[in-house]
Amino acid sequence: MKIDLRSDTVTKPTKGMLEAMLTADVGDDVYKEDPSINALEKRLADLFGMDEALFFPTGSMANQAALKLHTNPGEQVICDKYAHIYNYEGGGASFNSGISCKLIDGHRGMFTAKQAEASINPPDFYHSPLTSLIAIENTTNKGGGAHWDFQELKRIRDVADKHQLGYHLDGARLWNALAETKEHPKDYGQLFDTISVCLSKGLGCPMGSVLIGHKELMKGAIRVRKILGGGMRQVGFAAAAGLYALDHHLERLSEDHKKAKEIGGVLSGLTSIKKVAPIETNIIIFELHDGIDETQFLKRLEEKDIQIIGMGSNKLRMVTHLDYSDDMHSRLLTTLRAL
Amino acid sequence: MKIDLRSDTVTKPTKGMLEAMLTADVGDDVYKEDPSINALEKRLADLFGMDEALFFPTGSMANQAALKLHTNPGEQVICDKYAHIYNYEGGGASFNSGISCKLIDGHRGMFTAKQAEASINPPDFYHSPLTSLIAIENTTNKGGGAHWDFQELKRIRDVADKHQLGYHLDGARLWNALAETKEHPKDYGQLFDTISVCLSKGLGCPMGSVLIGHKELMKGAIRVRKILGGGMRQVGFAAAAGLYALDHHLERLSEDHKKAKEIGGVLSGLTSIKKVAPIETNIIIFELHDGIDETQFLKRLEEKDIQIIGMGSNKLRMVTHLDYSDDMHSRLLTTLRAL
Amino acid sequence: MKIDLRSDTVTKPTKGMLEAMLTADVGDDVYKEDPSINALEKRLADLFGMDEALFFPTGSMANQAALKLHTNPGEQVICDKYAHIYNYEGGGASFNSGISCKLIDGHRGMFTAKQAEASINPPDFYHSPLTSLIAIENTTNKGGGAHWDFQELKRIRDVADKHQLGYHLDGARLWNALAETKEHPKDYGQLFDTISVCLSKGLGCPMGSVLIGHKELMKGAIRVRKILGGGMRQVGFAAAAGLYALDHHLERLSEDHKKAKEIGGVLSGLTSIKKVAPIETNIIIFELHDGIDETQFLKRLEEKDIQIIGMGSNKLRMVTHLDYSDDMHSRLLTTLRAL
Amino acid sequence: MKIDLRSDTVTKPTKGMLEAMLTADVGDDVYKEDPSINALEKRLADLFGMDEALFFPTGSMANQAALKLHTNPGEQVICDKYAHIYNYEGGGASFNSGISCKLIDGHRGMFTAKQAEASINPPDFYHSPLTSLIAIENTTNKGGGAHWDFQELKRIRDVADKHQLGYHLDGARLWNALAETKEHPKDYGQLFDTISVCLSKGLGCPMGSVLIGHKELMKGAIRVRKILGGGMRQVGFAAAAGLYALDHHLERLSEDHKKAKEIGGVLSGLTSIKKVAPIETNIIIFELHDGIDETQFLKRLEEKDIQIIGMGSNKLRMVTHLDYSDDMHSRLLTTLRAL
Repeated sequence: MKIDLRSDTVTKPTKGMLEAMLTADVGDDVYKEDPSINALEKRLADLFGMDEALFFPTGSMANQAALKLHTNPGEQVICDKYAHIYNYEGGGASFNSGISCKLIDGHRGMFTAKQAEASINPPDFYHSPLTSLIAIENTTNKGGGAHWDFQELKRIRDVADKHQLGYHLDGARLWNALAETKEHPKDYGQLFDTISVCLSKGLGCPMGSVLIGHKELMKGAIRVRKILGGGMRQVGFAAAAGLYALDHHLERLSEDHKKAKEIGGVLSGLTSIKKVAPIETNIIIFELHDGIDETQFLKRLEEKDIQIIGMGSNKLRMVTHLDYSDDMHSRLLTTLRAL
Repeated sequence: MKIDLRSDTVTKPTKGMLEAMLTADVGDDVYKEDPSINALEKRLADLFGMDEALFFPTGSMANQAALKLHTNPGEQVICDKYAHIYNYEGGGASFNSGISCKLIDGHRGMFTAKQAEASINPPDFYHSPLTSLIAIENTTNKGGGAHWDFQELKRIRDVADKHQLGYHLDGARLWNALAETKEHPKDYGQLFDTISVCLSKGLGCPMGSVLIGHKELMKGAIRVRKILGGGMRQVGFAAAAGLYALDHHLERLSEDHKKAKEIGGVLSGLTSIKKVAPIETNIIIFELHDGIDETQFLKRLEEKDIQIIGMGSNKLRMVTHLDYSDDMHSRLLTTLRAL
Repeated sequence: MKIDLRSDTVTKPTKGMLEAMLTADVGDDVYKEDPSINALEKRLADLFGMDEALFFPTGSMANQAALKLHTNPGEQVICDKYAHIYNYEGGGASFNSGISCKLIDGHRGMFTAKQAEASINPPDFYHSPLTSLIAIENTTNKGGGAHWDFQELKRIRDVADKHQLGYHLDGARLWNALAETKEHPKDYGQLFDTISVCLSKGLGCPMGSVLIGHKELMKGAIRVRKILGGGMRQVGFAAAAGLYALDHHLERLSEDHKKAKEIGGVLSGLTSIKKVAPIETNIIIFELHDGIDETQFLKRLEEKDIQIIGMGSNKLRMVTHLDYSDDMHSRLLTTLRAL
Repeated sequence: MKIDLRSDTVTKPTKGMLEAMLTADVGDDVYKEDPSINALEKRLADLFGMDEALFFPTGSMANQAALKLHTNPGEQVICDKYAHIYNYEGGGASFNSGISCKLIDGHRGMFTAKQAEASINPPDFYHSPLTSLIAIENTTNKGGGAHWDFQELKRIRDVADKHQLGYHLDGARLWNALAETKEHPKDYGQLFDTISVCLSKGLGCPMGSVLIGHKELMKGAIRVRKILGGGMRQVGFAAAAGLYALDHHLERLSEDHKKAKEIGGVLSGLTSIKKVAPIETNIIIFELHDGIDETQFLKRLEEKDIQIIGMGSNKLRMVTHLDYSDDMHSRLLTTLRAL
C-alpha cells in the first residue's frame, strides 16, 4: 500500500467517521437549518470561548473571508513572508479583498512583536497603504510546522491594540500546536479577533474549515461567504465528520508528531541529506546535499511506493497524518535507512 | 410532516443516494485525485459534448467563476433584469470580477437576440463599459421557471459571434428545461461557451454544481476556484451523490412539473388570489389580491405545516421537488381548496 | 469659425481666465501647500455650507471617489438608468469600488422617493447586494439637461435617512440647475452627504472637478485620490481658473439656456425632425424622422462648420456653452432654418 | 528664501515655462483634440522609439495603468522591496488591479536577473499567484537615487522573455539616470514594454506623467485612464510645460547631481552623521548617529529655513532640483558645515 506523506490533507474518512456522516441530520444551511452544521459551529465557538463560528468549504475561503472582514481595499496586512495567505491562496488577498501584504522576514514563519510594530505604516502618510491587520499562522506550514511562543503572541496582541489593528490566526494546523504545547483553545480565543481552523488536515475530515470570531466582526461573515460562493445546502455530512473528529482525532495528533520526529532522526543520519529542519509537530522539511538530484531522490522513493513533495531549492517535505499507520512507519524508516 | 415548498434546494439525500455516498471512492481533489469527482466531471463534459468540467461547492461559485473567466474588470455582461447573477449572488459580479450588468427589461427573465444586440456598447466609445459577455438563465428563477425558446438562444449565439462576446448559461435549473422541452444537453453544449449546472436543486443532491465549457476558457477555471476558496479535498462523496442523481433523478423531474401545474390550477380558482403566472416547470409564482395580507396568508399555511416564501410586492412562490411526495401533494391541494 | 456644440466641455479659457492662471500662486498640492487649490477648496466648501472640499483632475474621479467613500465592495448604489456613473465612467463603479448599480427606470434621468425606496434590498437578505447609497445627477446629461424638483430631492433624503443610506449628488452641471431654479448651493449642501461639481463644463475651465462633503466622509478622500492617481503637484493653475470662473461665469449660464431654448424652437419647426425633448437648461436632444439618415444629417451640418453628436437611435444632441457666441447663434439658427 | 529639499516635486514653473503654458494651443483631450498633448505624446513616443504615448495627471496613475495593462487580478508583479509601486502608491496595485507584489530583497532598490528568475512562481502550481510582470524603478527613490546597470536590465529582459512576462519601467526619475549614464532613451525603449516618465520631478513641470509603450499593450491605456478618472479636457497647458522642459531642462540635470554630491561631501564630514549613502544622482540619504534626535535635527535646519524630510529609522533625505539655486547651495553648505 502506498505511503503518502505529501500532505496531511490526503486522509480518507475512517469507518467511524463515515458512519457519522451517513447518519447525520441535515438541512439547508443557506437558511441556517442544517442541525449538524449548527451543532459544529456552536461547539467550536464554545470550545474557543468566542461568540460565533461559521462553516466554510475550505480553509482558504475561511482565511479569505477573515481578511475581507478585517480590511478595506487598498489596506495592508502584516504577515510573515512564509504566510499561507501570501503564498498559497492563489493571490486571493489581492483578488478578493484588494489588499497587500507587508512581509516580515521572520524565523520559520514566525515574527516578533517588535518586528510587527516596525511594519506598521504611519496612518497619516497616505502614500503608504493603511495597515489594518496582523495575521499569524500557527503552526506554520512553510516554516516546517513550527509553533509560536504564546507570550510573543500576547505581545503582538498588545501591538495590535495600541495601533487599533485586527488580529487574525490562520489555525489550519492549530490543533497540532495545541497537542504539542498543551495550551487550550480558549487561550487563543481570548487573544485573537478571528481564528480559522481546519477539519481536513490533522483531523482527517474530507472537507471543511470553520471561522470563529467575535460578534461584531462575524456579523458580515455569512454575506462574504455567499459572495465568494461558499453557501452550501445539506452540508451537514461534512459537519458530522467534524464533530466526530473533535471527539476521536484530537488526542492522537501527538502520535503524528512522535512519528515525524522519528523520521527526522533517521533522515539526520543519512549521508545524502544536508540538513533536517527542527521538527516540532507533524511536518518534516529536509535539504538534500548539493550533489544529490531531487528528481532522482523522489523517484527512488516512488519506486518504494513512498510519495513526498519537493519545495524548491533542493528542499523536500513529509507530513505525517491519520492515514500514516504504524506499519507504514516501520516500512518508511527501514526504506530510508537503506537509501 | 412539514411540506416545504420554499425552494427545491431543501431536499435531503434519498436512501439510495446515501448508499452511493457511503461507498464512494474518494481522494484529494486539490491534487485532482478524487476518482468520484473525476468521473462526475467527465460524465458531464461528455453529456454536454464539451471539453471539460469542474466541480464547485455551489452554483453561485460556478457562475461567478464563469463570469471571471469571460471578463476583465470594468467590463459588462448583458443579462435580464431578473438574472440570478445580478439579483441573488450577493453582488458577486462586481465584488469578484469588477464587472457591471447591462440589464435587459425582458419577459419573465428572458430576452430576444434583438434586445441583446441593442445592449452592446460601442467598443470604441471608451466612456462606456466594454461589453464582453451575454449570460442566460434557463429556466429562469425570478421569471417563474420559464424556459427559453431554443431558436432565440441560437439567434443570441449569432449576436455573440458577430460581436465577439462570450456566451454563458446559468443552468441551475437546466435539467427542468430539458425535461420539459425534450432538448438534449448536447444542443446546449454546442451553443454556449460555458454552462453551469446544479446538482442540488432538481437533482436532490446535498451540495455541488459543475461548470462545463470549452478547453480554452476552462484552463483558468481551477485557478479561479482556488482563489475563491472552492478547492476542496475528499469531496467525492458529493460527486457520488451527483452520479447517482444523474442515473435516478433526471426522468422524474416531469412529475415535479405536473404537480406544479396542478397546484397552479387550484390556486387559479381561489378568490384570494389575483393572478397565477404561467407554470412551465416546477416553480409557481402567484399574486394575492390587494386586500389580502401576505403575512397573514403565509401564517395560515404555516399553521397547516406548509412553508412557502414571499417575493415582495404581494407575490409568493412555491417550488416542487424530490421531497414533495404524492401524499403531500394531496394534502396541499386539499388545504389550498379550503382556504 | 467652427461652431462646436458637441459638449460644453470643449471651451477654451478666456483671456481673463488665462491671466488668472498665469499669475496664480502655486505650491505642491500633494503636501496640501498649493495656495490656489486651498483657496478654491475653501471657497466651494463655504459656498455649499459643507465641511470640506477636495480638488480632482476630473469629474469622473470625483464621482468615483465619492462612490468609494460611501460603499464597500459588493454593495449597491441606487441610481437612474441614465446616470452618468452607470453609463459614462467606463464601468468605474465596479472596477474601482466593486459595487453594482440598482437601476431605476425613471423619467429623463430622474426618479421619485417612492421608486428609490422600492429599490432598496432587504438588508438581512444577504443573497442580494447590500444597498448603501442613493446617487442623483443634476442636471441629467443623458436626460437632456433636466433638473430635479427640490421637494422630491428632500423626500429622497428622508428615504436615505430612514434606511441609513448615503446620498451623493453628481453635480457636473449643478451650476446650470441653480441658474435656472434660483436655488442656492447651500440648499444642496444641507441635503447631500457629498456633492461633485465640475469646473470645466458650464464654467469654462480647462480641467478639474471638486468633491464637497461632510468631514466624516471626506476624511478618507485624499487617500482615495492618491490611490486612483489624482494627487497632482503645482495644479493651482487650474484652481485659479476655477476661482476666476466662479466670479465671472456663473451668472452668464442663463444665456446658454436662452440660446438652447431658441435652438429648440427652430428645430421644432423643421420637417426632418420628429421630436425635440423639453429644453430646461443647456442641452438639446432631438430625434430625426425615421426616413432621415443620421449620418447624412450630421454631414450636412459639418459642411456648414457645425459639429453636434449622435446619441444612437436617431437621436442627436447639442450643448450650448461659453464659447458659443451670439454670432455663432445667429449663424446656427439661419443654417438650421435653411435645412 | 526657503530652501526646500524635501523632494524634486516642489518646483514651480519658470518664467519661460509659464509663457509656454499660457500661449499653448489647447483642445478637448478626451476627444484627443488637444494639439499640445498630442505633440507631447508623439515627441515622447519618438524619443523612446516606441509606438505610442499617453499623458496622465500623475506618475502614480501612469504606473497604475501600466500594472493594469500588464496583469489580471490575482496575478503577481516582481519588484524590489523598495519599489515605489509597492511602497508609495497607496496600495494601488492591489486596489486598482487586484495584484500582489513578489518582493525581492535587493540592493538599493535594484536586483539581479538571477533574483528575478528565482522569484517567478511555477505557472502550473495554481496555489501561488501567477507571475506576469517584472517592474523596475530607475533611478530608485527609496534606494537613494541609484541607477541600474544597463547590462543587468538586459539580462532581466531575457528572463522576462523566457517566461513570457511583461517588463515595465517606472521612470519617474529616468531623466536623472540618463543624464548620469549618457544612455539614450531609445536604449530603454528597445528594452521595456512600457515606460512611465515624469514631467514634474526633474523636469520642473507643475504636473503630469506620460506612459510610453508598444501598440498592443497601449491600446487599452485610454480606457484604463478613463476608468481611473484621468481623462482631462484642455490640459494642453501642462503638455506645453512638458515640451518646454524637454527643450530646456534635460541637460541641466547634471547640475543637480553635482550639487547633491557636494552636499554629500559636506555631510560625510559632520560628526552628527553616521553614514551617507552613495550619491549617484540627485538624492541624498544619510543616517544620524544613534545619539542624535531626528526631530531636533530637522528643527535646527527649519530654523535656518531649510526643509528636508525624515524617512524613518533615523534616516533623512534631501533632493536637489531646478529651484535649488547656486545661492541656496552656498548657503546650505555653509549652514551644514556649521552644524
